[in-house]
Amino acid sequence: MRTIDWVQGRIRLIDQRALPGSLQTLDVDDLDTLVEAIATLAVRGAMALGVAGALGVALACSRAAAAGDEVLAAAGSARGALQAARPTAVNLGWGAARVEQATRAAAATGALPRAVAAAALAEALRVRDEDIAASQALGEAGAELLAGVGRVLTHCNAGALAGVEGGSALAIIAALHAQRPLDDVLVCETRPLLQGARLTAWELGRLGIPHHVIVDSAAAGLLAGGAAQAVVVGADRIAANGDVANKVGTLGHALAARHAGVQFVVAAPESTIDPATPDGGAIPIEERDPTEVLAVGGYRLAAPGSPGRNPAFDVTPAEFVTAIVTERRIVRPGQGERPAP
Amino acid sequence: MRTIDWVQGRIRLIDQRALPGSLQTLDVDDLDTLVEAIATLAVRGAMALGVAGALGVALACSRAAAAGDEVLAAAGSARGALQAARPTAVNLGWGAARVEQATRAAAATGALPRAVAAAALAEALRVRDEDIAASQALGEAGAELLAGVGRVLTHCNAGALAGVEGGSALAIIAALHAQRPLDDVLVCETRPLLQGARLTAWELGRLGIPHHVIVDSAAAGLLAGGAAQAVVVGADRIAANGDVANKVGTLGHALAARHAGVQFVVAAPESTIDPATPDGGAIPIEERDPTEVLAVGGYRLAAPGSPGRNPAFDVTPAEFVTAIVTERRIVRPGQGERPAP
Repeated sequence: MRTIDWVQGRIRLIDQRALPGSLQTLDVDDLDTLVEAIATLAVRGAMALGVAGALGVALACSRAAAAGDEVLAAAGSARGALQAARPTAVNLGWGAARVEQATRAAAATGALPRAVAAAALAEALRVRDEDIAASQALGEAGAELLAGVGRVLTHCNAGALAGVEGGSALAIIAALHAQRPLDDVLVCETRPLLQGARLTAWELGRLGIPHHVIVDSAAAGLLAGGAAQAVVVGADRIAANGDVANKVGTLGHALAARHAGVQFVVAAPESTIDPATPDGGAIPIEERDPTEVLAVGGYRLAAPGSPGRNPAFDVTPAEFVTAIVTERRIVRPGQGERPAP
Repeated sequence: MRTIDWVQGRIRLIDQRALPGSLQTLDVDDLDTLVEAIATLAVRGAMALGVAGALGVALACSRAAAAGDEVLAAAGSARGALQAARPTAVNLGWGAARVEQATRAAAATGALPRAVAAAALAEALRVRDEDIAASQALGEAGAELLAGVGRVLTHCNAGALAGVEGGSALAIIAALHAQRPLDDVLVCETRPLLQGARLTAWELGRLGIPHHVIVDSAAAGLLAGGAAQAVVVGADRIAANGDVANKVGTLGHALAARHAGVQFVVAAPESTIDPATPDGGAIPIEERDPTEVLAVGGYRLAAPGSPGRNPAFDVTPAEFVTAIVTERRIVRPGQGERPAP
């Protein structure tokens, strides 16, 4: 089952807000619903957001063509609305922009509105198919890089649920496990929204891979004690110099990996690398509603009246990144390699 | 109101399991109830555990004398049961041992059982009073050390609720605030049991000190961005070489403080320094029930069937500790100073 797909003229996605309690799908046939689904993390993860951006623009074009509205204008406005829903995620804007550009190219040939919308959909489906191929390729490349490693730590969810199929970090972990059964995967729960405890643990359970859920802050001590030989995470945006924006907590794991002398590997498709972002200082960090920190599942955790802060991402400097594994290469920022010109 | 005290022949303590929802006290008049209260964290925090250990042995002596049982034997067995309830916490065993020793000294003079029990109680009350004085002294010393700092990050609860009054890290923060109002205290929520979000935020709210609750893993990015000028934490055990065992997550904050170039200050009474522990490698790390990680307030967080790991502490190497502030000195392990011979 795919995390996000185009089914019978609509976007179908697994509603990740309901996991791991129940596996529900959501059929989306208008842009507002998709933007809301992205903002509330019904669909999330760098790769899946790229596909969501692409399919979202295609959906808007298809609706505009059917209503007799201006298709190019709909594509442009859809792209803006989608990117604004998650400002740190570069893939989201990348997928949306790719489809918008296909729309422009088709319109430039003088195609009729319905043909322009069809070109948009064709491009969006290419984005989806390339995503599936990228997961497989980077999974195999990462498993080769980490051959022999038996204990891995990961953060957040960079699994099948973060792409169409396979994902990034978990694609590597699954490929490693296929090579030689893993001893243990330490799954950081990933506060505040617990994508690790809810989603990654759920995926690893379905894959039959041994794992333990830990609180995020246990990672440093466990790594120092030798509980993992590598940290493998995804990325939401990679700057030209190799600085990596990813789920809040990633920087701490990178510092802990350095302290423990273990590899820190970032798994991401090429589309996550943003040549327009020179370094991490230029990456906007999304601050989400502090309520996500102060309560879990409607249960207030914090003292009444105490305010919170909720940065959703952090930036790991390139020097701490052993390797970035994409679907077509391995870049070593820690050794001074730059992923983009 | 004191966190733990001796009132009308019983131990009275604030039941911290009920905070911040409600402020309840628990009157304890037998050792089993106290051991249970310690194991379930109704009373916790290094300094408060020292007093709990002391009062616990005094309580056991008093009950033994009243029942006509052997007072010395009761003291010895109480000390063992108390220490076993939280093996990492050195103060607990220290407080219990101090009172047991007072019992032996009294018995050696040929005192009657009730007089031996009275000597035990007198020593336990001295431990309590010294704890109050230590909080005040180390708070002032720490505020002098950090004079001018306006933004601080802390972890777990090393506040009034972790001692009889005042605590350690929060004693410094309160004294700093009294010197010059603080701009902000970043309170790490402290998964799994949320002592930061529940207890430290509650204390800071009552003290009128501006603060924000954050997820533990947001600390590294916020520190790197300049959100705090110092990290101030308590300690559960300090080895002779300056290695510090404290609540899980402390090591990560120390690494993040080093990365950000901010001070990492440990606040603890002298009783936390254990000359018998040469370095951090010799400190037993309590592993608690994984259920604490997998659920919050009865609400299951993790995927069904996924197991967890729950180390309750970690060890921060001395090299990362800018200063240890006690009630009588400032030790700088990061500069090679050792707190014990």
